[in-house]
Amino acid sequence: MCQLLGMNCNTPTDIVFSFTGFATRGGGTDEHKDGWGIAFFEGAGVRLFVDHEPAIASPVAELIKQYPIKSTNVISHIRKATQGHVALENCHPFIRELWGRYWVFAHNGDLKEFSPLLTGAFRPVGTTDSERAFCYLLQELRKRFGDTPPSQSALTDALRELTSEIASHGVFNMMLSDGAALYVHCSTRLHYIVRKYPFAQAKLSDEDMTVDFAEVTTPNDRVAIIVTEPLTTNETWNAFTQGEMKVFVDGQPVS
Amino acid sequence: MCQLLGMNCNTPTDIVFSFTGFATRGGGTDEHKDGWGIAFFEGAGVRLFVDHEPAIASPVAELIKQYPIKSTNVISHIRKATQGHVALENCHPFIRELWGRYWVFAHNGDLKEFSPLLTGAFRPVGTTDSERAFCYLLQELRKRFGDTPPSQSALTDALRELTSEIASHGVFNMMLSDGAALYVHCSTRLHYIVRKYPFAQAKLSDEDMTVDFAEVTTPNDRVAIIVTEPLTTNETWNAFTQGEMKVFVDGQPVS
Repeated sequence: MCQLLGMNCNTPTDIVFSFTGFATRGGGTDEHKDGWGIAFFEGAGVRLFVDHEPAIASPVAELIKQYPIKSTNVISHIRKATQGHVALENCHPFIRELWGRYWVFAHNGDLKEFSPLLTGAFRPVGTTDSERAFCYLLQELRKRFGDTPPSQSALTDALRELTSEIASHGVFNMMLSDGAALYVHCSTRLHYIVRKYPFAQAKLSDEDMTVDFAEVTTPNDRVAIIVTEPLTTNETWNAFTQGEMKVFVDGQPVS
Repeated sequence: MCQLLGMNCNTPTDIVFSFTGFATRGGGTDEHKDGWGIAFFEGAGVRLFVDHEPAIASPVAELIKQYPIKSTNVISHIRKATQGHVALENCHPFIRELWGRYWVFAHNGDLKEFSPLLTGAFRPVGTTDSERAFCYLLQELRKRFGDTPPSQSALTDALRELTSEIASHGVFNMMLSDGAALYVHCSTRLHYIVRKYPFAQAKLSDEDMTVDFAEVTTPNDRVAIIVTEPLTTNETWNAFTQGEMKVFVDGQPVS
């Protein structure tokens, strides 16, 4: 299996603290050493870093820890290969363009016998069930809404149906973003926290590292972090229920 | 205007030497300081690094200079904004998927009144004429060949027509790769060199740096470097003729 990390904020924020703990699980405190990746939305653009090296030993991961890239939507993934060999084209997150915006996707789980008909507009480059699911999601969105992007609420309804359909084939913990919102579906295990004023200290569970968010934020900032296993030891994380999809906008879940 | 750098090899090779000279032009020895980017094919996968910082001052460019990523097809670009503001989504290279493989594209030039009808499958995210041209190229390829990728020679013929059509709207120096070949069209100014056995020393023109390729290659290696302005002072570079398209495979131009 793999692990997922997502961030959604109301103001561009760096993910150095959370990523530092998360990356340690990529071959350090945990066994997810078959590649990793991270994508940052920056305006309409995306910075995507993927590497088939374990995150703990990757020079690119080292850069991410040192270089505070500010973003309102981030998705990261550390991989333990189940389907698809260890190769760059099988590293998450995956990226595609639909309706003139980028879509970024990462998945944790295993989809058995999931071979949807992909009719051409979106096709997998690698060999993972995950990329197949991503292509299917985008194909079905385009089929439903044609060339005109729907409202966020119509999009949410469609994704609720589609993720639930895909999840019937196995474990489908996933994160998807178009830069405006972060869509998160939980089959088995995901947690989230919303950090907002008054900010407090947080201590990583995987590294000896503490940050006082009060020192690096303004009172208006709001940041949601979503992750497979809680990243800190002194905060209260909310568990997703199984089969639940949540949409995060401006640093908090919307109903 | 901008500058382009491409590499096509018969064996995975790093581009540290050439990129070091090239990146210096991104705000150092030249004025191309409105962002930059580089894409490396690695198997079917792609590593894409884009940054709206000048290449000379970018921590990501620093990583590329230090981390020898080996690839058979590389495209890099340093930008001086003409159309489209300075933003991540306007940094080249651009990436899309077609026929289950990634396509990477970068452009130097200026296309006046080029507003092709883009019917939906490939749409620009940013505001450059370049991304518009890229989306048009892929759309037309898909229109011609449907869901089945053509042979390289059929692809070459189609690209020859399409690049020539786009070039009628202005300056269209461009590099395009699907990981198998590097397609290069020259409107105004491009140079290339093929390095092969017996390898010799090369000295950068933009940095005080020399490399003896004989020490870092095997006799079977062959590397083509394509660039707007020659990168070294002691080698003979071949100039493209205006309106010419060349296809590089396994480190050399094919007819």
